[in-house]
Amino acid sequence: MYLTQCVHKGVRQCPQAVAVVGQGLRWTFAQFQDRVARLAGALQGLGMQAGDRVGMLAQNGVRSVEFFQGTWWGGGVVNPVNTRWSAREIAYSLDDCDTRILLVDAHFAALAATLPGLSASLQTLVYCGEGPAPTGMLSYEALLAAAPAVPDALRQGDDLAAVMYTGGTTGQPKGVMLSQANFYTGTLSGIAASPRRPGGVGLVVSPLFHVAGCALSLQLMRRLFPQVILPAFEEVQVLQTLQDEGVTELFLVPTMVKRLIEHPRFADFDRSSLRNISYGAAPIDATLLSQAMAAFPGVQFSQSYGMTELSPTVSTVGPDEHLPGPDQARWLRSAGRAVPIAELRIVDPEDRELPTGQIGEICARGPMVMQGYWNKPAETAEALRGGWLHTGDSGYLDEEGYLYVVDRIKDMIVSGGENVYSAEVENVLARLPQVSMCAVIGVPDARWGERVHAVIVLRPGAVLDEAHIAAHCRAFIAGYKCPRSVEFRTELPLSAAGKLLKFNLREPYWAGHSRRVG
Amino acid sequence: MYLTQCVHKGVRQCPQAVAVVGQGLRWTFAQFQDRVARLAGALQGLGMQAGDRVGMLAQNGVRSVEFFQGTWWGGGVVNPVNTRWSAREIAYSLDDCDTRILLVDAHFAALAATLPGLSASLQTLVYCGEGPAPTGMLSYEALLAAAPAVPDALRQGDDLAAVMYTGGTTGQPKGVMLSQANFYTGTLSGIAASPRRPGGVGLVVSPLFHVAGCALSLQLMRRLFPQVILPAFEEVQVLQTLQDEGVTELFLVPTMVKRLIEHPRFADFDRSSLRNISYGAAPIDATLLSQAMAAFPGVQFSQSYGMTELSPTVSTVGPDEHLPGPDQARWLRSAGRAVPIAELRIVDPEDRELPTGQIGEICARGPMVMQGYWNKPAETAEALRGGWLHTGDSGYLDEEGYLYVVDRIKDMIVSGGENVYSAEVENVLARLPQVSMCAVIGVPDARWGERVHAVIVLRPGAVLDEAHIAAHCRAFIAGYKCPRSVEFRTELPLSAAGKLLKFNLREPYWAGHSRRVG
Repeated sequence: MYLTQCVHKGVRQCPQAVAVVGQGLRWTFAQFQDRVARLAGALQGLGMQAGDRVGMLAQNGVRSVEFFQGTWWGGGVVNPVNTRWSAREIAYSLDDCDTRILLVDAHFAALAATLPGLSASLQTLVYCGEGPAPTGMLSYEALLAAAPAVPDALRQGDDLAAVMYTGGTTGQPKGVMLSQANFYTGTLSGIAASPRRPGGVGLVVSPLFHVAGCALSLQLMRRLFPQVILPAFEEVQVLQTLQDEGVTELFLVPTMVKRLIEHPRFADFDRSSLRNISYGAAPIDATLLSQAMAAFPGVQFSQSYGMTELSPTVSTVGPDEHLPGPDQARWLRSAGRAVPIAELRIVDPEDRELPTGQIGEICARGPMVMQGYWNKPAETAEALRGGWLHTGDSGYLDEEGYLYVVDRIKDMIVSGGENVYSAEVENVLARLPQVSMCAVIGVPDARWGERVHAVIVLRPGAVLDEAHIAAHCRAFIAGYKCPRSVEFRTELPLSAAGKLLKFNLREPYWAGHSRRVG
Repeated sequence: MYLTQCVHKGVRQCPQAVAVVGQGLRWTFAQFQDRVARLAGALQGLGMQAGDRVGMLAQNGVRSVEFFQGTWWGGGVVNPVNTRWSAREIAYSLDDCDTRILLVDAHFAALAATLPGLSASLQTLVYCGEGPAPTGMLSYEALLAAAPAVPDALRQGDDLAAVMYTGGTTGQPKGVMLSQANFYTGTLSGIAASPRRPGGVGLVVSPLFHVAGCALSLQLMRRLFPQVILPAFEEVQVLQTLQDEGVTELFLVPTMVKRLIEHPRFADFDRSSLRNISYGAAPIDATLLSQAMAAFPGVQFSQSYGMTELSPTVSTVGPDEHLPGPDQARWLRSAGRAVPIAELRIVDPEDRELPTGQIGEICARGPMVMQGYWNKPAETAEALRGGWLHTGDSGYLDEEGYLYVVDRIKDMIVSGGENVYSAEVENVLARLPQVSMCAVIGVPDARWGERVHAVIVLRPGAVLDEAHIAAHCRAFIAGYKCPRSVEFRTELPLSAAGKLLKFNLREPYWAGHSRRVG
């Protein structure tokens, strides 16, 4: 199981077909393989040994795809750096897994120039942007031009493929170790779970430093579909690219679907090539889905649930389950059923399996489960105890194996001995027309242990007071679940993947307190 | 990657759904898991340690499926015995890989009773047929009733899963070592290559001791489709089962398709449930295909090419490629394109890759390639040299990656320095209306090194002489390819999988001669 296999297959089966497109570049499989083999040679020339980590700090681009395949081809391990991080956070992750070579684009060159002073590991900066390399950095294109096209090191199976840093949502970043087999089986499972007609074209707008974007790119290449890489999500650019490239496959989060179809210029573009929209990170509501189905007639929708530790997908709601029908609402509320390679089970805090319908921690088993957290044996043992990955999410399974994610375990509030699932309270708050976004967290409370606290972003021009909120919530949920305090903000902290960073919201309240975990 | 995963998934997702059907038995996933876990306990009680081989000598049945899963669940390795073999051949394979426990059904109990006198390894015979166990054998059902349901040993990844004996076609049987990952990725690749709607029902008529039947059964269980097991191919029983069980998936060889649709009672049965027929071992001709498409309207046809060493499939011709159209004839003549997990290449005798269109040895690479031949390091190194499995088949790839199998390398005849592909000569002979079956082999010849020799089975009542054959062949092919000698027989030696055993035809001619190999 080697992730470079798709490059070999592309060159044998369709050498003149387009492999990657972006930033005005358009490589065929033959060209792409040549660049990958020479990047591998260049990295080896810079001292990369088998299993060494190589980082990349850049916006999405065709060179991001080269970075993944070229590092593996040369025997290395990728460390794709989260571009939203501060220089100190980046330096922490480079040092944590001893990354010595870092590829940097024009967008992050200034930030990268500060890293050598912060990171003990970093030795070589390679500039892969346009124009001449800044002082202190080597030129990517010059390295490639001079390097030999080396043979594929054929890293495979349990060989480490990537260290991907997660966290943000729960504090200290952890380097998730994913093997060649993790990604290989995960990608194959994705293809088995969602077959496609030949001849598709994929569009990648999710950041490639996140596992979702990375896995999407890998899956497109395994299907031998050309992949068009955009630096970020921007409505008009996405619509223009859909039309120009005849895109058939699109991965978005539900809010992006909404932004696309509500964009004033939506109707100006031809979207008829589109066949599949998959989405993740959150369920889609039935209203948005029916609007989207009307806006993209004939397009199939599917949802994925997963996380970095699971390479990333463990369950999906397929296209048939999105169609109108008696079970649609139930299926859409779920995170779907286990993908071909995954098993799911729900356990209590003592790791005993719970029966159907009971809420507990969601656990997963299968070849997509990470090898562990880099240099964190205790956290690894805890997360993988009993041979199952403990997701930290709470949920339940129904009698047909559909998974319902209730909440992050760590986001569950224990107030006066009662469990409060923040998602439930957030759903009630979201019914208020004045509320644009909201988050419910537990904050320390002398009497109740934790107190239910709401953070609310109002729609422009809206007015709302605590008394109104309290009365509204009482109408829907038990008193102990209702917020006992409310705070209004103009925005909520989001991760690069669009996930709400509840840890950041909680942190100021918990300074000096200790909070039970999980 | 663990093959028992499908049992765990079935029990979690659909415990009351049917898993296996046959011989009047019908187990749900819950029942099947219980029997598998108790068979594992029984085998451990009989001394099976992790990695030990367990054999089975039986017609297809639900207990064959239990044998596979139960042996793995208990930590063992399956050695499914070819039921066409003689007692001496069976004893050879048991001793070769040190199989100490053998499961036997009523059909082979008498044969099995002779094995302890022939095999040094065999220690325990377990009778899994109906009625009381013969003297000297333990009762399978009694063992299961008494055994504890043990936890899954979770053999996985590179752990050995099976030793499957091949050969027959080229002499001394070799034990092909297939790992859990080999079958796991092979099965997943099969699902990715040929998606199915949910709710299918599979019918298994291929022998489960062959890799094709075994992989089919594994794939059905991974899809969580009920599988109906028949002891052998018999037209009326197949048609009756299609109708009674609402079968959607069928795997046959082309001659079986022909026998089914030409059967006088064909029209008596309802075949409307059938959705997919996959076939292997040989291409299907366009005439038979169009007859079959008319007989099974709406059914999708697909072809697989592979071998035991490849777990077994490396290329497929998909349903779309079977539809009438300008490329149909070309696609049907091919063995299709590489499955998702496989790479194919063609090499010359010095292992140099050949360009598109040139004939050489077909090689394959990917996670489905066997671990090697049991106890045969030299043959293993030869077969796997350079990291590629050398199939022993000759063929070429076209510019779109379609594979064309020309002949077995070992069946190629070198006569007077010219290569003669026996398949080409056989195709010419088959045009004679008097010929029912034929085989072309090379036999020793003082002048030419090898001489082209034809073995022919005539149709009942037909008359044919050598002069007529020679004139016919000259009209189609070069003189050096035409048979220089002809032999008439009433039948040809076939393996259990229906493959022609050319080795057996050649053997008497080559006694005392040495023949170059492949």
